[in-house]
Amino acid sequence: MADEIEQKLAPLRLFVKDSGDLVRRLKEENAPKIEIDRAVVDLKAHKKKLEEMEIALAPKESNFDRGKLDDLLKRRFFYDLSFSIYGGVTGLYDFGPMGCALKANMINEWRKHFILEEGMLEVDCTSLTPEPVLKASGHVDRFADWMVKDVKTGECFRADHLIKNAAEKMLSDKKVSEGVKKELRDLLALLEGYDNKDMQAAIEKFNFKSPLTGNDLTEPIAFNLMFPTQIGPTGDYKAFLRPETAQGIFVNFKRLLEFNMGRVPFAAAQIGNGFRNEISPRQGLIRVREFTMCEIEHFVDPRDKSCAKFAKVRNYPLRLFSAENQMGGQSAFEMTIGEAVDKKIVDNETLGYYIARVHMFLVKVGVDPQRLRFRQHMGNEMAHYAQDCWDAEILTSYGWIECVGNADRSCYDLQQHFKATKVELVAQKDLPEPKSIDVCSPLPNMGLIGKTYRKDAQKINAALVGLAFDVAVGLEKELELNGKITLSVDGAPFELTTDMLKFKRETKTVHVEEFTPSVIEPSFGIGRIMYSVLEHSFRQREGDEQRSFLAFPPLVAPIKCSILPISFNQQLVPIIEAVKECLQSHEISCRVDDSSGSIGRRYARTDEIGIPFGITVDFDSEKKPWTVTLRHALSMRQVRLQVDEVGPTVEALVRGRLTWEQAEEKFPRFESKAE
Amino acid sequence: MADEIEQKLAPLRLFVKDSGDLVRRLKEENAPKIEIDRAVVDLKAHKKKLEEMEIALAPKESNFDRGKLDDLLKRRFFYDLSFSIYGGVTGLYDFGPMGCALKANMINEWRKHFILEEGMLEVDCTSLTPEPVLKASGHVDRFADWMVKDVKTGECFRADHLIKNAAEKMLSDKKVSEGVKKELRDLLALLEGYDNKDMQAAIEKFNFKSPLTGNDLTEPIAFNLMFPTQIGPTGDYKAFLRPETAQGIFVNFKRLLEFNMGRVPFAAAQIGNGFRNEISPRQGLIRVREFTMCEIEHFVDPRDKSCAKFAKVRNYPLRLFSAENQMGGQSAFEMTIGEAVDKKIVDNETLGYYIARVHMFLVKVGVDPQRLRFRQHMGNEMAHYAQDCWDAEILTSYGWIECVGNADRSCYDLQQHFKATKVELVAQKDLPEPKSIDVCSPLPNMGLIGKTYRKDAQKINAALVGLAFDVAVGLEKELELNGKITLSVDGAPFELTTDMLKFKRETKTVHVEEFTPSVIEPSFGIGRIMYSVLEHSFRQREGDEQRSFLAFPPLVAPIKCSILPISFNQQLVPIIEAVKECLQSHEISCRVDDSSGSIGRRYARTDEIGIPFGITVDFDSEKKPWTVTLRHALSMRQVRLQVDEVGPTVEALVRGRLTWEQAEEKFPRFESKAE
Repeated sequence: MADEIEQKLAPLRLFVKDSGDLVRRLKEENAPKIEIDRAVVDLKAHKKKLEEMEIALAPKESNFDRGKLDDLLKRRFFYDLSFSIYGGVTGLYDFGPMGCALKANMINEWRKHFILEEGMLEVDCTSLTPEPVLKASGHVDRFADWMVKDVKTGECFRADHLIKNAAEKMLSDKKVSEGVKKELRDLLALLEGYDNKDMQAAIEKFNFKSPLTGNDLTEPIAFNLMFPTQIGPTGDYKAFLRPETAQGIFVNFKRLLEFNMGRVPFAAAQIGNGFRNEISPRQGLIRVREFTMCEIEHFVDPRDKSCAKFAKVRNYPLRLFSAENQMGGQSAFEMTIGEAVDKKIVDNETLGYYIARVHMFLVKVGVDPQRLRFRQHMGNEMAHYAQDCWDAEILTSYGWIECVGNADRSCYDLQQHFKATKVELVAQKDLPEPKSIDVCSPLPNMGLIGKTYRKDAQKINAALVGLAFDVAVGLEKELELNGKITLSVDGAPFELTTDMLKFKRETKTVHVEEFTPSVIEPSFGIGRIMYSVLEHSFRQREGDEQRSFLAFPPLVAPIKCSILPISFNQQLVPIIEAVKECLQSHEISCRVDDSSGSIGRRYARTDEIGIPFGITVDFDSEKKPWTVTLRHALSMRQVRLQVDEVGPTVEALVRGRLTWEQAEEKFPRFESKAE
Repeated sequence: MADEIEQKLAPLRLFVKDSGDLVRRLKEENAPKIEIDRAVVDLKAHKKKLEEMEIALAPKESNFDRGKLDDLLKRRFFYDLSFSIYGGVTGLYDFGPMGCALKANMINEWRKHFILEEGMLEVDCTSLTPEPVLKASGHVDRFADWMVKDVKTGECFRADHLIKNAAEKMLSDKKVSEGVKKELRDLLALLEGYDNKDMQAAIEKFNFKSPLTGNDLTEPIAFNLMFPTQIGPTGDYKAFLRPETAQGIFVNFKRLLEFNMGRVPFAAAQIGNGFRNEISPRQGLIRVREFTMCEIEHFVDPRDKSCAKFAKVRNYPLRLFSAENQMGGQSAFEMTIGEAVDKKIVDNETLGYYIARVHMFLVKVGVDPQRLRFRQHMGNEMAHYAQDCWDAEILTSYGWIECVGNADRSCYDLQQHFKATKVELVAQKDLPEPKSIDVCSPLPNMGLIGKTYRKDAQKINAALVGLAFDVAVGLEKELELNGKITLSVDGAPFELTTDMLKFKRETKTVHVEEFTPSVIEPSFGIGRIMYSVLEHSFRQREGDEQRSFLAFPPLVAPIKCSILPISFNQQLVPIIEAVKECLQSHEISCRVDDSSGSIGRRYARTDEIGIPFGITVDFDSEKKPWTVTLRHALSMRQVRLQVDEVGPTVEALVRGRLTWEQAEEKFPRFESKAE
């Protein structure tokens, strides 16, 4: 079976390898950029075809039916489109009680797993962000998608989506010739690598029109994905809703460093909402306009990215999909993170440590490890400032979805904010031993400079003080040679003569050195992880496909325990109350289902929303001491125990201190006739 | 002492009482609105003077120094102005590690206290809100402040703030006559009740100008406090950032009711951010532009607002400040909530239940009950739709601050959204017994109507089906009398004759009735509560005013336990690690302070940020079995215990299952020389 699949994949793997080799060769040969770009687009297209075939040939998850899951999530209000009674808004979702609790439990676990265990510094910054901050970070200029407009109605479409839909429509049209269809298939494969000009060419070539009116389309124009607003009443203080939480951490770097008593490395973390004004969001929770992120910014000395705790994860195995592998047309492979770092597949220990910890978190909250991989960005898809980047990708019915980005952002962000504000965002490091450095200090005659340049004198002085060593030495020489120099200050030239300026050479002893820390950033999209967990938890009872249920890890299950009275008998009420109190005193969330309907039907209702444990209060419960049955939803097996044992037992089961098998050994088995 | 104070207050109380009586009399006499309004402004002014005097005469909190607290909060990064390196933005604050943890702990406690214990349905809705939703809720038209602009520069000022500052400046000017000063003092007292015309009159009378330029000012104009944005690329889908989370719950009412299996009463809750574009925010966390709210919407049958759990809180004592009391110039009084509801001081049991639960929550997270009161809105300050409203007010150095609003919003919101969407937002209730109702059903001859009115026929039919009983009976009579009627559909008249329409009288038996639920809303401003807790927790050590500290309830303390090694000796490292692991396995957040500095100095550093417990690893720790000392920050007393007892002991202390006194009985006392 596996051999057969590999046979089918072999030719596709070869295509990828060949185009990968080509890209490499062109780069080595310093070929023109346009040639390299073309080869990269080709490589991506082949990779995409290989991946689609791999997914198509892989053994299917036992008849997963997205329609059924979507129906369940809507019907039991995990989440649903926002403002439905007003017609709804695409890309905005409201979480109901179930989705909310699942999300809160996942975030709580994240806080424990990362912030508490790693001693991270949490911050909570505003979503409203002034324009200059996002100008410095690059978002104002570069955070955009290509969009085309209907020339008559002004209707907007995301250019790549429009091309994809139009091409697919033509492909299913019998009147289109086989030759054109081949071109269309190539177009679809190449589309991901297209820029605005490529897309415009495709639109012209295939004569694509507005799908709603058939009108002509504009050329692709850049549409910035940030939501604009203004702060204050005058309307001239421009701001945006943050597209990521990271910038809030960077602008607080000095405060955080001080809080950490000046020491590096340290990590800061933030949990909060990000906003992206997607042109035409689809795919449910995968692409939305308002979403919760959890981001970590780990600040580290760029020359020493070792990690004290790396030894603890060294032997942790991961499925890695390196750039090398991708270029070679191979599949992802298993390797311990220790080996991956040793072999320089993963750039450094700190990044490796986080990759392992991210994997542990995802599995803990319910991602199937068989459908989880870490894919390295290839050189050409990495942000220009990134050193290395590994995305945690989860396989869902939408394909492999990027859920956690793990990027080494180098010193880019701190340096950008320094450039914009002139506030030094640096850390200090004790030198192993004091160091002597040469200094070339300017000694300006401020009296004379003041007389000559009046109000500009201060600026000139400031510029002189800030001169780098090399520049100062250069100017010193020039001054000696010509008797004057021309200093450029804010773009204006100022002539300084030997009577205005001298330089002094000296040697200074320094004990510390300053550096701009590198940043390693794991960035989690909580909605995407949540959706993946929902897909991976969705099951159908063997032999009864109508009975679907959600097998969440108890840790994240929205409700931990149901309470089902077997009848409406008033005598059961005090027992129900006692169970409820016992559970709540152990902080176990529970839900009483005393609706009509058989007990079996009610079990199915509670299984459907992923309640892992259930208490049944039956007619035997009344005998003193009161007892109830405890049901394990996954196995549908039950035990009988006393009411006051319910709280500690369910708490131990939820926290993973007790397995169900151990519970079955501890308490007598109970056979239910309901299932 | 108390008598002396009362003597001083007596004349002020009398003024309030007299003006309260006047308002009441004018209302009884149905006096013109303008007269009543004037009397109300007068009443408020007297109330304000009384309250200021009360606060001035009350025994002072032991030399509270806001400057010192602010310095601590900034220096240890509880919170600070956002985007400071870019110059900062007023009204936006970032929370650092300490503020973040304090806030997260308060919110966790809120979730337990309300959502978990009361079985509320939590939702998590988007901040982005389309304009029609906020049009229906009234925010687009009415959520505004009065603003004046500098006629030349366009600089904006909140009108009431400008008047207050300008008046205060004139009051301190020696050149201003005593007669004018009297008028200014009256102006200040009256200002709270002013509308735009009153403010314009004051600006003209006293010739107030722009404080920055001395230029003239525009008339007060309404400035809407919502942040505007657009969703999607076309720019024509207007939206706002939500000013409150409540509307997200209302638009999800149908889904929530269904989730609750159709049953009323039930409560929904939401924790999330709200946004208000304040014109010129001041007062730190008290008035900000982006803030976290916790809101509950409890849906209840408007004819039965009794509460099953009310008996549990009936004897809970509260400090109430009723409208009656306020009008009478009296102070707040102590009363059990049971008595307050029995006497109809608080409108109903459900509202009363929440008031008591809100009080419990506030005290649990660290609000001083002596500085907490519930103040009832007077008729004229209540939103036009509210039935009864009690604000939890906390006394801080800024005066009494509204921190939790508890309002009976009646059916207003659901009805507004129904009007806007035509989606029925109602619940059903079983009638105690089936009821016979008279029905007057229209029997249209659709063939003839269709022939006559073509495309309007369907609209006409829909209008006929929706006729209320009374209207149908009226039309039936008219039809009988004149042989025809004129039906108005969407504003257009349609004549219907006896051959087009008949009516049929019948009697139907119904088993359920529909109703629009009333809403009781406790709405929490987390930032304000947090600031109040910070003020109420701020202490100075007796005899050493430089040593300030924060005495948080351990439950909400940002960090629960510090770990202080007495020296840098490497042999202590494994003990420190063991302590840390033991604490973390009990989910107790801790912070190691191994900085240089004496142990006493480090105690002071940890006390300052409100860490309630501290572990010291000293030279005796190394003896097997390893022991450490545990210090109680509040009392500065210490005990000695084994390392593996540390986790369970601190957890029990934090969760309130063990008092410090009990810990002192259990473990041997340790005398530290450091303090």
